[in-house]
Amino acid sequence: MATKPTPADKFSFGLWTVGWNAQDQFGSATRPWLDPVESVHKLAELGAAHVTFHDDDVVPFGSSAAERDQILARFKGALAETGITVEMVTTNTFSHPIFKDGAFTSNDRRVRRYGLRKVVRNVDLAAELGADTFVMWGGREGAEYDSAKDLKAAHDRYAEGIDTVAAYIKEKGYSLRIAIEPKPNEPRGDILLPTVGHALGFIAQLEHGDIVGLNPETGHEQMAGLNYTSGLAQALWAEKLFHIDLNGQRSIKYDQDLVFGHGDLFSAFATVDLVENGFPSGGPRYDGPRHFDYKPSRTESFDGVWASAEANIRTYLLLKERALAFRADPEVQEALEASGVLELAVPTLAEGETLADLLADTSAYEDLDVDAVAARGFDFVRLNQLALEHALGAR
Amino acid sequence: MATKPTPADKFSFGLWTVGWNAQDQFGSATRPWLDPVESVHKLAELGAAHVTFHDDDVVPFGSSAAERDQILARFKGALAETGITVEMVTTNTFSHPIFKDGAFTSNDRRVRRYGLRKVVRNVDLAAELGADTFVMWGGREGAEYDSAKDLKAAHDRYAEGIDTVAAYIKEKGYSLRIAIEPKPNEPRGDILLPTVGHALGFIAQLEHGDIVGLNPETGHEQMAGLNYTSGLAQALWAEKLFHIDLNGQRSIKYDQDLVFGHGDLFSAFATVDLVENGFPSGGPRYDGPRHFDYKPSRTESFDGVWASAEANIRTYLLLKERALAFRADPEVQEALEASGVLELAVPTLAEGETLADLLADTSAYEDLDVDAVAARGFDFVRLNQLALEHALGAR
Amino acid sequence: MATKPTPADKFSFGLWTVGWNAQDQFGSATRPWLDPVESVHKLAELGAAHVTFHDDDVVPFGSSAAERDQILARFKGALAETGITVEMVTTNTFSHPIFKDGAFTSNDRRVRRYGLRKVVRNVDLAAELGADTFVMWGGREGAEYDSAKDLKAAHDRYAEGIDTVAAYIKEKGYSLRIAIEPKPNEPRGDILLPTVGHALGFIAQLEHGDIVGLNPETGHEQMAGLNYTSGLAQALWAEKLFHIDLNGQRSIKYDQDLVFGHGDLFSAFATVDLVENGFPSGGPRYDGPRHFDYKPSRTESFDGVWASAEANIRTYLLLKERALAFRADPEVQEALEASGVLELAVPTLAEGETLADLLADTSAYEDLDVDAVAARGFDFVRLNQLALEHALGAR
Amino acid sequence: MATKPTPADKFSFGLWTVGWNAQDQFGSATRPWLDPVESVHKLAELGAAHVTFHDDDVVPFGSSAAERDQILARFKGALAETGITVEMVTTNTFSHPIFKDGAFTSNDRRVRRYGLRKVVRNVDLAAELGADTFVMWGGREGAEYDSAKDLKAAHDRYAEGIDTVAAYIKEKGYSLRIAIEPKPNEPRGDILLPTVGHALGFIAQLEHGDIVGLNPETGHEQMAGLNYTSGLAQALWAEKLFHIDLNGQRSIKYDQDLVFGHGDLFSAFATVDLVENGFPSGGPRYDGPRHFDYKPSRTESFDGVWASAEANIRTYLLLKERALAFRADPEVQEALEASGVLELAVPTLAEGETLADLLADTSAYEDLDVDAVAARGFDFVRLNQLALEHALGAR
Repeated sequence: MATKPTPADKFSFGLWTVGWNAQDQFGSATRPWLDPVESVHKLAELGAAHVTFHDDDVVPFGSSAAERDQILARFKGALAETGITVEMVTTNTFSHPIFKDGAFTSNDRRVRRYGLRKVVRNVDLAAELGADTFVMWGGREGAEYDSAKDLKAAHDRYAEGIDTVAAYIKEKGYSLRIAIEPKPNEPRGDILLPTVGHALGFIAQLEHGDIVGLNPETGHEQMAGLNYTSGLAQALWAEKLFHIDLNGQRSIKYDQDLVFGHGDLFSAFATVDLVENGFPSGGPRYDGPRHFDYKPSRTESFDGVWASAEANIRTYLLLKERALAFRADPEVQEALEASGVLELAVPTLAEGETLADLLADTSAYEDLDVDAVAARGFDFVRLNQLALEHALGAR
Repeated sequence: MATKPTPADKFSFGLWTVGWNAQDQFGSATRPWLDPVESVHKLAELGAAHVTFHDDDVVPFGSSAAERDQILARFKGALAETGITVEMVTTNTFSHPIFKDGAFTSNDRRVRRYGLRKVVRNVDLAAELGADTFVMWGGREGAEYDSAKDLKAAHDRYAEGIDTVAAYIKEKGYSLRIAIEPKPNEPRGDILLPTVGHALGFIAQLEHGDIVGLNPETGHEQMAGLNYTSGLAQALWAEKLFHIDLNGQRSIKYDQDLVFGHGDLFSAFATVDLVENGFPSGGPRYDGPRHFDYKPSRTESFDGVWASAEANIRTYLLLKERALAFRADPEVQEALEASGVLELAVPTLAEGETLADLLADTSAYEDLDVDAVAARGFDFVRLNQLALEHALGAR
Repeated sequence: MATKPTPADKFSFGLWTVGWNAQDQFGSATRPWLDPVESVHKLAELGAAHVTFHDDDVVPFGSSAAERDQILARFKGALAETGITVEMVTTNTFSHPIFKDGAFTSNDRRVRRYGLRKVVRNVDLAAELGADTFVMWGGREGAEYDSAKDLKAAHDRYAEGIDTVAAYIKEKGYSLRIAIEPKPNEPRGDILLPTVGHALGFIAQLEHGDIVGLNPETGHEQMAGLNYTSGLAQALWAEKLFHIDLNGQRSIKYDQDLVFGHGDLFSAFATVDLVENGFPSGGPRYDGPRHFDYKPSRTESFDGVWASAEANIRTYLLLKERALAFRADPEVQEALEASGVLELAVPTLAEGETLADLLADTSAYEDLDVDAVAARGFDFVRLNQLALEHALGAR
Repeated sequence: MATKPTPADKFSFGLWTVGWNAQDQFGSATRPWLDPVESVHKLAELGAAHVTFHDDDVVPFGSSAAERDQILARFKGALAETGITVEMVTTNTFSHPIFKDGAFTSNDRRVRRYGLRKVVRNVDLAAELGADTFVMWGGREGAEYDSAKDLKAAHDRYAEGIDTVAAYIKEKGYSLRIAIEPKPNEPRGDILLPTVGHALGFIAQLEHGDIVGLNPETGHEQMAGLNYTSGLAQALWAEKLFHIDLNGQRSIKYDQDLVFGHGDLFSAFATVDLVENGFPSGGPRYDGPRHFDYKPSRTESFDGVWASAEANIRTYLLLKERALAFRADPEVQEALEASGVLELAVPTLAEGETLADLLADTSAYEDLDVDAVAARGFDFVRLNQLALEHALGAR
């Protein structure tokens, strides 16, 4: 079995994960909300290096300034005692009824202004706590009905909101970066910026997009039937993978937030392989926290909560061990070569070759033995079986 | 019933749609491939203004130069006779076995070079025929298995390919623009650039991205459970909606390519509403062809083929009539106002207002009656019911 | 526009629909729970003939016997005043934490016994109020994890529970029938009896299956990508369509519970066509209440709640009007004939013909002109376009 | 690594799997069809015990009687040489254009009669070859459009067809059983009998349903977002699991037909666990062939075809090894106990206890400490993590 986690593993948990009171759409709470201070201590014991939170997770909505100070002082005490650090902070702009039509894109301008204030206040807290990343999940930014939103105005307002926050971060000299978390639906029928791709396209239109990137979540991409690892890859390629949210999802359905690996296990192996080993021919790497954003099932008591937290860590370490062995296996290297995986890094036009040169190269087109080239077998199934057997620890 | 189509309606059909031989994954052809010349004549009779095609739709793969010239001459004759024009051309880089692992991103560099040549050759044809748009659907650019692709290299090669073609277009002085057509899967397990968003993010990384935009297809977005109209809207917002492919899809499953409106009908109304009326508060508009990319069902004879072609036009015109009436209805305008749809166009920060000003505005946060604001009903269901009753012609 | 509803339209609403407090998985309540008595009065004004409820909707969980009596007396008063009747009653075995692993199939036998008691108590109330149908939605009967359930034992316990209730109904001489409501997932990862089909298969194994049938819900079948109307049809064919739950869902995602028609509109037309017109060649009909099981969106105030209730009725009546016109149209009758739809009612073997006779009929096989038969066009697209234009009121 | 396969493992392959010519919806064949005789020899070498086929896989559609005899004689020779047996036979009623609207439920009665003849002819062949199972996949029995089918008549005709075949089997005294293979869609928009459940419900209405059961396919159930293992379980519970089709599918999309385990790996572990170990508390078992119904990817040459065939076997044996270890682990047994999994086999009513007794048992309801019972943690996550670590070979 895999070794014990260390801070170098950068495991991180949202306080809203283990702390969740297990109330869902069809049923009331089966557990009380956990005291964040208790969560910090427990997560430290389990080997986490970091925690993350929404403002409301630590300081209840509507607390007075004095209450807020007191709560935060106690919370910082727990961090100091345990050595746990806060790597990311996010803002709850989705639970309170005022946000029922969104925050930055609510049709009610009063809500947009209020939401912006709530977010900016939390940016200060994030900076104060030394976080690197400020996540924005716009879970209520969307609609159930096509006529309910002017989608051009909605994108304008969304951009205005994020650019305003980004400008503020720069002005203050904070070392924070913003990470947008896409989700296709739930709790809204259609959410704006539904996938990694939509967020990448959106960021390209921002004025301060240089400090805005992505926080893709496993289950959110899979809720659109998309390949999570491919999403991470495109974000890395665009140098926009600022943070990751790992969890589990079983097919296209409601947001399950299972333990990492308890959803699509082989896909989780691919994710860990990318995160730990990078692309086969090199390129940008993800070096941030391994952040779990999951929910301990509603059937569990607190024993189950902590078992589920540990399960995330154990599964990740196990898959990491296998992913390292996979890439180190000479047979795998040979198979990658045979399948042309490494050949894909070779530019299509040779160094110095122009399109005119290619057009003049009859061996490329006029004289190519198309049928012979077409007959090449790529041996992808063999390669995939090697990956599968490594994932299963059978090699 | 709606009026007859005119060229001003800009209806356009792919020759591969009506021409399809109705062979599918599980069964052999139930019709012969149609002669493109016959299709041009028939589509002209039905009121289409344009046709579009893949190279291989008109000139069979592997034809000699002489055969090609002869075929194209006859084809141009049909265009001249009917007044039909070619508004878009695309390249088949997915049917022949040589493209089984893709064209621009095949792991085999010989295939990449061959594919680039095939595409460039077709760009010349597109320019010669006066097309405005050159569509690229990379249906085989993808993988079934996570280990089969170096996804960083794949994005590099994809960008290299498209930038090379775009540079060629510029160099030649063609008035063509490239439109990428996203699709999440089928025929590959996961296709690169799976949605409108991923393509937007990708284009932002290109060197010649200024002439590269989108050709979103109704069913392709819906295969990922995404809202097609929202996808169009984000592309418009980014000024990248270069072309549209209209058809029908019933939920998340294989690519059905039904007649426009024969899938999600109310969503089709929303699409037509956006295309014909634009955003409620104005902004970029789509002014290109209404292009149908569908397949006449395999159960149909040629009578059914032409009935299906006409069904696309009739449904579009019908929904257009209703969409115009919807927006013109004073009750709808009042409802849009009541729901705050028009208010969303008002910037969150007033003109000249800085974030510092907002932070100092206690009416926005400290003194806001949060519960009162939260209590506002948005009346979205009423608005949606108005839309539905207009769509149904019941107002 | 369609006429006003009358009791003959048999419109029925769950009290939990309009009454919902609009708390969801990611946010707190935006409205208070409505007093059932107020709902009864309002629904009567809107033209409903019936209401339905879970025990806990009317009598809060944990009420004393005296409180219960008092509440029920007041509730019956409202029924008497308005003429509204209770056509269906159901039991909440999913909200309270005790049911977190299900009721009839909880791994904890104490819960199973408690759940059975809660259900039986409510059967008495249903009978007392004159309901015809007792719905059972086993929303918590399921699991997130494959190892968490002995699925053989789970089916045994489920059958034991339902047979016990059915036997009790018979023993008491109640005129109630049980209707199982399938759902594929949410709130559990996988729910037992996930579709109409699974419930039909299950009922066939029951001892008292004669009084057990189905209550299919539009969105629940569509959450599995299935055709709701086809589900109704198979249930009718098996003479098991005891009740229906009408609402709206947009593709495969979380349970949206939209207004009927606000999801897949053309599919809703097909549903109304089946319910109001029956099968083209006759057969079993559904004659029960048109029951709406939906949720007024969380963005709505009480004005929006009542607008949404009315929207269900208006949409249904509108689609009914169009469905009647569709079937009455001679062109449609001719098209049904041309497409062979009516021919499907002719048995494959002629009356009195044996298989031996068919085997001896060389015209059926040896001498059949296979290619000629294969060439027949079914003209399904034309027929579908006729349906669509009738649905849109354009004929 | 797992041991080599033996005939006792009962591995079986469809000849259409390895033999497939790799033509798909969007591309032409990348391989020739394989000679069935060659496939038999190769599969024998790989350790398969059985093969299965559609009539047309071995004898091309339209062959004369003499050709047929000659082909079959050669095929039987290969069986005799290798010791491979034919355990299942099925009929192709979906590829030829004559079946474009189905076979047993085509709107054209001539097609229904022809289809019935084609099936019966193949039943004789199945019996002659000693097969146990006759699979019926009605892939074309369905529709794209709601108005295209009289669904009552369609179910009648489907039942007539299957009952006629079943009666014939009985009359002839063949030891064959019929196994229906459900699929939700593709190649039709909606297929009749879309899931395991719908087929179970259908069989319950048949006259000769005693010899009709199920052949569930992994990917087909997953295309509806359903849990394959749960489907097997309900079929077993109804004593209708006659055959299984193992393969791989990655989420809800087109039918991928990947190698077993190359889709949802952890779900594949659950399937093997059920097949090899049965239910935790006992009950009906599946003892038939482990039949692979997959497609070697279109990117593969024949080397890849055979590697993919072997991959099915290796993955199955590997998961079997782990599933046996999982159940044998005392910690797992303890965890199953702690989670109440074994308690679910205890009837809710004690032996001899009546409902009246339960109603009189105040400890079950009136005096139950509901909150205390509700507080029980089920420890399902821990149990699932144990399963996952066994699947990964990490225990």
